[in-house]
Amino acid sequence: MKQDFIDGIGRHDTPFYYYDLDVLHSTLHAIAATQPVDSIVHYALKANSDLRLLSIIAQRGLGADCVSGGEIQRAISAGIHPQHIVYSGVGKTDREIEYALSCNIDCFNVESLAELQVIDSLAAACGKIAPVAFRINPHIDAHTHHYITTGTSETKFGIDISQLDQAIECAVALSHVRLRGLHFHIGSQILSLEPYCMLCSTINRLQEQLAERGIDIDYINVGGGLGIDYDSPDENTIPPFAQYFDIFKKQLQLQPGVKLHFELGRSIVGQCGSLISRVLYVKEGVDRDFVILDAGMTELIRPALYQASHLIENLTSQAEVQPYDIVGPVCETSDTFGSHIMLPTTHRGDIIAIRSAGAYAQSMAMTYNSRPLAPAVYSE
Amino acid sequence: MKQDFIDGIGRHDTPFYYYDLDVLHSTLHAIAATQPVDSIVHYALKANSDLRLLSIIAQRGLGADCVSGGEIQRAISAGIHPQHIVYSGVGKTDREIEYALSCNIDCFNVESLAELQVIDSLAAACGKIAPVAFRINPHIDAHTHHYITTGTSETKFGIDISQLDQAIECAVALSHVRLRGLHFHIGSQILSLEPYCMLCSTINRLQEQLAERGIDIDYINVGGGLGIDYDSPDENTIPPFAQYFDIFKKQLQLQPGVKLHFELGRSIVGQCGSLISRVLYVKEGVDRDFVILDAGMTELIRPALYQASHLIENLTSQAEVQPYDIVGPVCETSDTFGSHIMLPTTHRGDIIAIRSAGAYAQSMAMTYNSRPLAPAVYSE
Repeated sequence: MKQDFIDGIGRHDTPFYYYDLDVLHSTLHAIAATQPVDSIVHYALKANSDLRLLSIIAQRGLGADCVSGGEIQRAISAGIHPQHIVYSGVGKTDREIEYALSCNIDCFNVESLAELQVIDSLAAACGKIAPVAFRINPHIDAHTHHYITTGTSETKFGIDISQLDQAIECAVALSHVRLRGLHFHIGSQILSLEPYCMLCSTINRLQEQLAERGIDIDYINVGGGLGIDYDSPDENTIPPFAQYFDIFKKQLQLQPGVKLHFELGRSIVGQCGSLISRVLYVKEGVDRDFVILDAGMTELIRPALYQASHLIENLTSQAEVQPYDIVGPVCETSDTFGSHIMLPTTHRGDIIAIRSAGAYAQSMAMTYNSRPLAPAVYSE
Repeated sequence: MKQDFIDGIGRHDTPFYYYDLDVLHSTLHAIAATQPVDSIVHYALKANSDLRLLSIIAQRGLGADCVSGGEIQRAISAGIHPQHIVYSGVGKTDREIEYALSCNIDCFNVESLAELQVIDSLAAACGKIAPVAFRINPHIDAHTHHYITTGTSETKFGIDISQLDQAIECAVALSHVRLRGLHFHIGSQILSLEPYCMLCSTINRLQEQLAERGIDIDYINVGGGLGIDYDSPDENTIPPFAQYFDIFKKQLQLQPGVKLHFELGRSIVGQCGSLISRVLYVKEGVDRDFVILDAGMTELIRPALYQASHLIENLTSQAEVQPYDIVGPVCETSDTFGSHIMLPTTHRGDIIAIRSAGAYAQSMAMTYNSRPLAPAVYSE
């Protein structure tokens, strides 16, 4: 956290999201420096679709991974070319598909045969051929929270690998879709690189199967999911992109003419953001003391929804540390950022930073308890 | 669900919240017919602060239980008199307290001594005496979801019963607060009436203690928490108000001049609302079929946040039933309304009602995945 930001922090109404644009730039630079030649990295807007961050990401030449018509609109308005936009999601509405067709996006990542048929008929109605890829569920367990595991067989996402033949037959028979390739997304906040090795093997095998069937593809999208270090954002500000990309460079055997797509969200924006909050009260309980903040689950729902923990810092006290429960003002017990957190002795008016809040914080904000949405503040 | 609504349902864009105002009126009538003489029922806005519902509730003469300045504003704009507004919440900001003082609300339900001191100093600054009650944590376990349990000792809410003496001394010593009484709230979605019996005993005992200390009170607020029947909303549309109120009529021994306040939220609006959604796709998985809706956790987060289940109905199919996983379009595994739900054979375009969605649905909506907020539709 920059000292001049901390020095001037009293100027701002709290709570707000603070985005350190230097961190974002460094992160984007690290990606550009290590990504495989001829690959394209798409930014997953669901992590954070703040327009200022988006426009920086767009200027760096990244594409967009969108999961709704609203996200496609935001990506385009931030300056991302439709030909660098792919559209995923299990529940694409007719209106959203029509909008995406009208924009001439790069590819629809199709998650079911039912969806494939709808895309075909909507493309036919407007005289277009929709470029599609199948999102394949490769049975790889990424060992993450069960809410954000997406690559095993029981979830709503993707087409099971055992159903791929049927899906190909279906695509070949339809006249207004063009099968461009395969898409994968095995989960989120993945900290071990092992699942990606397994993914490469699966992709190599599937590519061969497709070639044997005479199916030409030009698109392999390996998704995202690379995790960030929520415990040590200052020590590990930049995720291990080099190791991550290296796996694909070394283990993926792409056939000529196939473009490799990555979809990264959290690993791009997670560490550049903090949720900044003021201490309203320090409440002495019976067996613990509570630090009551003016930010809550309405600004950052990850602890309540995923039992996630974020590093919490008192920016305005250097006293001896002691344990606190750090809670928000919302009338829900789940509105708690952490129990028995060691903080310097904390007083009303102190400023608290909840770190690594660049991803899945502002984008999941709500106005519960009739609370206004918190604004964003950017480092200059 | 009204037949004429179902008949005309094709007219509406989905998803939307459907509110049956007849159910709301019947519920309010049942409350008025059974509440104790001279008691006042406050509606807890956090359940749903839709202005049309609020204005109906206001017209019936209910007060408001607010937990933020925004809620106080909404209550007043719906026609609830400030003298019928009480203000709870562990994290009242200075600005919110100043606003509540300027409105001359009925009572601040104070949740910590730290808050009491801030209210006193802000009241002094504007030359007012703030009417306050202590929210007491009475150590009653309401056996509900751990996220919405609020009456046991470890949570952030209220002043522990063991700290009451200290709190009274503090209030007596301050010159700009007037201690009016005690407030309790033992939890949410409480289905057994036993915890309320325990609450009455506690209140009777505390009243005596206060009288012995010569503290005159005129306000006892027993909170809310009365649950609704999520499994059978048509059989149990109106919660068991008569039995609920009877406990207080029979077991609470209020001293002369003490006004009894109730705070009900979910039990007032829960059953009048449904989330109405269209089936986008029926997806054949390997070991199960998925019904993919155009509504998701963005419109109703209770299943994701509390593992809550709501009755799900297909309004447009009477075919044989079969099991489905009912999921939303949001890119999260948690965006699931139910697994192995028996529904009539379901097709794309069918209309699905997720029942008992009047409370904690629209008020907790979010725009995650850049989804627009769903509108409300009212029965006429």
